[in-house]
Amino acid sequence: MIFGESHGPAIGVVLEGVPAGLELDLEAVQRELDRRKPGQSPTATARKEDDRVEVLSGLFEGKTTGTPLTMLIRNGDQHSSDYASIRYTPRPSHGDYAGFIKSQGCQDYRGGGHFSGRLTAPLVAAGAVAKQVLERRGIRIGAHISSIYGICDASLEDTGVLEEVAQKAFPVLDDAKGEEMQQAILEAKEEGDSVGGAIECAVTGLPAGLGAPDFGCNVEGVFSQYLFSVPAVKGVDFGAGVAFSLMRGSEANDPFEVRDGQVVTRTNHAGGINGGITNGMPVTFEVTIRPTPSIALPQESVDLRTGEETEIEIHGRHDPCIVPRAVPVIEAAAALAACAVLGI
Amino acid sequence: MIFGESHGPAIGVVLEGVPAGLELDLEAVQRELDRRKPGQSPTATARKEDDRVEVLSGLFEGKTTGTPLTMLIRNGDQHSSDYASIRYTPRPSHGDYAGFIKSQGCQDYRGGGHFSGRLTAPLVAAGAVAKQVLERRGIRIGAHISSIYGICDASLEDTGVLEEVAQKAFPVLDDAKGEEMQQAILEAKEEGDSVGGAIECAVTGLPAGLGAPDFGCNVEGVFSQYLFSVPAVKGVDFGAGVAFSLMRGSEANDPFEVRDGQVVTRTNHAGGINGGITNGMPVTFEVTIRPTPSIALPQESVDLRTGEETEIEIHGRHDPCIVPRAVPVIEAAAALAACAVLGI
Amino acid sequence: MIFGESHGPAIGVVLEGVPAGLELDLEAVQRELDRRKPGQSPTATARKEDDRVEVLSGLFEGKTTGTPLTMLIRNGDQHSSDYASIRYTPRPSHGDYAGFIKSQGCQDYRGGGHFSGRLTAPLVAAGAVAKQVLERRGIRIGAHISSIYGICDASLEDTGVLEEVAQKAFPVLDDAKGEEMQQAILEAKEEGDSVGGAIECAVTGLPAGLGAPDFGCNVEGVFSQYLFSVPAVKGVDFGAGVAFSLMRGSEANDPFEVRDGQVVTRTNHAGGINGGITNGMPVTFEVTIRPTPSIALPQESVDLRTGEETEIEIHGRHDPCIVPRAVPVIEAAAALAACAVLGI
Amino acid sequence: MIFGESHGPAIGVVLEGVPAGLELDLEAVQRELDRRKPGQSPTATARKEDDRVEVLSGLFEGKTTGTPLTMLIRNGDQHSSDYASIRYTPRPSHGDYAGFIKSQGCQDYRGGGHFSGRLTAPLVAAGAVAKQVLERRGIRIGAHISSIYGICDASLEDTGVLEEVAQKAFPVLDDAKGEEMQQAILEAKEEGDSVGGAIECAVTGLPAGLGAPDFGCNVEGVFSQYLFSVPAVKGVDFGAGVAFSLMRGSEANDPFEVRDGQVVTRTNHAGGINGGITNGMPVTFEVTIRPTPSIALPQESVDLRTGEETEIEIHGRHDPCIVPRAVPVIEAAAALAACAVLGI
Repeated sequence: MIFGESHGPAIGVVLEGVPAGLELDLEAVQRELDRRKPGQSPTATARKEDDRVEVLSGLFEGKTTGTPLTMLIRNGDQHSSDYASIRYTPRPSHGDYAGFIKSQGCQDYRGGGHFSGRLTAPLVAAGAVAKQVLERRGIRIGAHISSIYGICDASLEDTGVLEEVAQKAFPVLDDAKGEEMQQAILEAKEEGDSVGGAIECAVTGLPAGLGAPDFGCNVEGVFSQYLFSVPAVKGVDFGAGVAFSLMRGSEANDPFEVRDGQVVTRTNHAGGINGGITNGMPVTFEVTIRPTPSIALPQESVDLRTGEETEIEIHGRHDPCIVPRAVPVIEAAAALAACAVLGI
Repeated sequence: MIFGESHGPAIGVVLEGVPAGLELDLEAVQRELDRRKPGQSPTATARKEDDRVEVLSGLFEGKTTGTPLTMLIRNGDQHSSDYASIRYTPRPSHGDYAGFIKSQGCQDYRGGGHFSGRLTAPLVAAGAVAKQVLERRGIRIGAHISSIYGICDASLEDTGVLEEVAQKAFPVLDDAKGEEMQQAILEAKEEGDSVGGAIECAVTGLPAGLGAPDFGCNVEGVFSQYLFSVPAVKGVDFGAGVAFSLMRGSEANDPFEVRDGQVVTRTNHAGGINGGITNGMPVTFEVTIRPTPSIALPQESVDLRTGEETEIEIHGRHDPCIVPRAVPVIEAAAALAACAVLGI
Repeated sequence: MIFGESHGPAIGVVLEGVPAGLELDLEAVQRELDRRKPGQSPTATARKEDDRVEVLSGLFEGKTTGTPLTMLIRNGDQHSSDYASIRYTPRPSHGDYAGFIKSQGCQDYRGGGHFSGRLTAPLVAAGAVAKQVLERRGIRIGAHISSIYGICDASLEDTGVLEEVAQKAFPVLDDAKGEEMQQAILEAKEEGDSVGGAIECAVTGLPAGLGAPDFGCNVEGVFSQYLFSVPAVKGVDFGAGVAFSLMRGSEANDPFEVRDGQVVTRTNHAGGINGGITNGMPVTFEVTIRPTPSIALPQESVDLRTGEETEIEIHGRHDPCIVPRAVPVIEAAAALAACAVLGI
Repeated sequence: MIFGESHGPAIGVVLEGVPAGLELDLEAVQRELDRRKPGQSPTATARKEDDRVEVLSGLFEGKTTGTPLTMLIRNGDQHSSDYASIRYTPRPSHGDYAGFIKSQGCQDYRGGGHFSGRLTAPLVAAGAVAKQVLERRGIRIGAHISSIYGICDASLEDTGVLEEVAQKAFPVLDDAKGEEMQQAILEAKEEGDSVGGAIECAVTGLPAGLGAPDFGCNVEGVFSQYLFSVPAVKGVDFGAGVAFSLMRGSEANDPFEVRDGQVVTRTNHAGGINGGITNGMPVTFEVTIRPTPSIALPQESVDLRTGEETEIEIHGRHDPCIVPRAVPVIEAAAALAACAVLGI
């Protein structure tokens, strides 16, 4: 359970069900947090978030105790006054308006409050713990930027390369394509605009037979619920994804074969899931990330007090593309989903 | 909660939380069931399913009582012996193999058992009840086939037309496109193959302010969980969906304006959801439906007893495209999701 | 999930999460149903319930498939017209009034509808399946009538005797006390009245370390939630129960000792649970069963249409004490709770 | 969700679903915390807990935002070394042993860790917020010590007096009885022992028609789940409670009558709940609190490393009776349960 507001005193997460006795590598948690930290490259947002995680409970003598694990990240560097203008004038395609209605005008509007992308920091911390739990069972998670503003990365043939990709500042398979993507981001930035993209993720090592076709147990359903809780994710597509709509059954079907004494499928169009149950192949999916709604260009809005249409211009920070920073967040959401599917 | 196996004595659903006092229109429930019935046109499967719904509980003197509502559909027309060949030789991309592993070989393999598309019948019945509950609150749900095998329907400008589309035997906006799609299905059928497609769905009338950004409450997450429990759904994309990856923020953002004294957005790329919360615009999404894995062409499989690779050929029934029949199923899943979001 | 109304077409239950591959003994399920059947002795209700269970799903070739298991019991012998008088004149201490308000007058009032004790039949069927799952893990459940109208059974020293008690028509440890109890029931019956009592139950074989102190995982909380869903249960007390309020810590504490190489406690005042977690000793508890509210004596009520006070007299069936029949129901609820605690 | 360990850096709670726009009275929260603070009287524990609550999220400009509300209480005054002796020698009837098994020896054993009574502080804070939410709807909660070591308080005729009782240092109806109880506590203390007791609680203002007979919705089940998550609670009995086992139906039934145009019951033996649904009368129940297992007398235990029986003596703090301090905790649990029943 994630809590906090962008400009409140702190954000954090309480994790239930962490198995007892795990020697928690807090350095690894911090490294994951650093991967999502903004301000690392010219293509990223200007906000400096020096997030240090503090463990409040569930850890004793370096090992998890099996009781709720709480991680806290204090908020620093805040220019809350920057946001006074948006209190009653919602930014288009942000959560501002929906949050205003839901909270009857009582939301913490500063920096998007609880709706801020900043809330992905505790999610990443939680996912980093989940990754360590999964690793002990031989389950690994990796992801890469699959496209930005229409520029596509190479296709993922071998999930083994994703560990290497995780070390890159700009996590793509094909660095030349990565350069093009960064160029597109910079162009958008110069024009005060932003761009969208997509991330492909793979979970390897999940045994066959997990999940059920039914609502609530369906593996695709469980993953998608975690993935859609990441801000800006607007689509989740498993395996061949939207390309299925262009295919025939004879192409789409994954033939069974025996490899090293194991029943596997030759292709993995199904993304490791049939009938809502894992089939032992890597669980693969692509998520679509919308362009950051925060842009520097003037936009049309409405003053919620007067009901009059008005223009809104956002000054200060402006993140032209969150896709690169979203890679560790998607991995984190996938790690939590994998734990849920395993019943951890 | 949906129960039953394709070739067991009966399938059905128990619905909790149906408000008391609803005058249930059982004719309307039956009409929805008839919409998903196979064997209605040359492009559909040959199985005759004359599904009559029987209400076992939760209804008294024609009105719902607020206690669990149980609807039962007895199974008829079964050629269980057709399936003996697949008991230990799973059909590629079906749930057979995953189900075998999960149940340690104890699944009811006949006709896919609990994994069968037949289990969408109780889902449709449940959705039909949900639709009646929603209608009393001014919420309506409609859908159309948005593409089959790459042939795209006209784009949905006005959700109002979907009521008319629901009456069509082949639910598309543009009947000429519909003809092309049916042609593609027939061609696949003749070749013993199947085709995939996509369905676009819209939920109108949901008030702004429902949901939350967080896991478990996120509106996109709730909808996707219901949608992925529909067999063959492999992708769920909200609003502009995968096209967001090609867009700039200035295009993607939905400007606010005032219409009839109401704050609305000029465009609805967000599909009615910002920050996981409804914004009062129609909730729109597209689901990708994979080609039916059941094809008449021979396929490669493995004998799970001997571990030897083998060929499998499925005789008898063969549904070259389930997309048309899936339209009422997607509407049903959306209706149940809308009820969940409303807390009904 | 239990569904149905006393005088509707059928009652039943859908069980999720039954492990696959269990060879289900349907005879044993029927035997449990027979234990709760009314009309077996002069002290019991006159209603003849010849409950035969029909399995609709989740069972194939005699083994569970791991998919939802549905059991249906058709309703027979109904004198619905007997109940016309209570439609708008609620019986004191029945669910009639609460159900009327909740359903805005749309409840199935006949025989208590969904509130009827008859709904314990599917609960017993579900519990009988749970017992078979537990037995494979060495977990056994037994219960006896601990008191009726102040007449107390012998105290339970050894849980081993409960298997024998389960065979008795009147399940007590001390048959002489049982005679006295039956005498008290008959006296109440003759006066048109009813009596209450208590049932003591023990679950043996649960391993130490299950559960957690927290809400939702607390073993006492999980058990009590199942137990209070049995109609007429008004109190749940673990181990020494209410006697704890009379004790000192030095008496109440259970000293640890080593027996056969195992850490055990000499006494079991805690009822097998410390800090919300099992400690490996039998989980024991007592439930208080209120006197059946249905009595033949005239009672004061209100006509809900006119708001006028009125007298109500219930003719026909009248069960002077449900405690004996409630024994298998409490065992069933405990079996389901034990499965929940084990995460089955 | 409550987190923290007695001797960790902090304890706290994250509350989901707090309605937006509530002007939170933090002074009132602090007052409730002060009510459960130990060390206030000679009959209480010696530990000084100067608990100050810090709100980390969900509050903005003094009003709740509707997003998760996090309250943190830093731990102070800790003599962790006092507990070294119990690491492998569990205290009888504490959660030590069960926690050791569950966590495979990795629990924070100091002061009971997550099992500590100290964890009731965040529960009280959460309950104080819930009380404020309920108060806006006219729902009030009060409790009194109903017995200690067999000395019974006067019986509760009028729930109105409970507000006054809440102001007392020793919350009983009859102060003379309270004196006797305190005498019994002091005697036990002098002998290095402890005593148990019971608390009676009433929730007034809950409307009729909430809940359902079924598992998961049953009002008694919901309350008991919250109440059993309070450490040391071993029994929960509604209305007449265990006395039902001594009653006849004609005594136990609550006759309906009309008062001020409202349908009410003359007596309230049912404790405001029939068939698992509220009937509009006050929800009343009694919880049994076991004697504190921490006593100064030597006790028998086992060294979990060597498997040898050994004696254990606990030095330092010793709380001879937690019943008085448990009163606000039970009220808090009841407040959270009432919110759950109302669907807040």
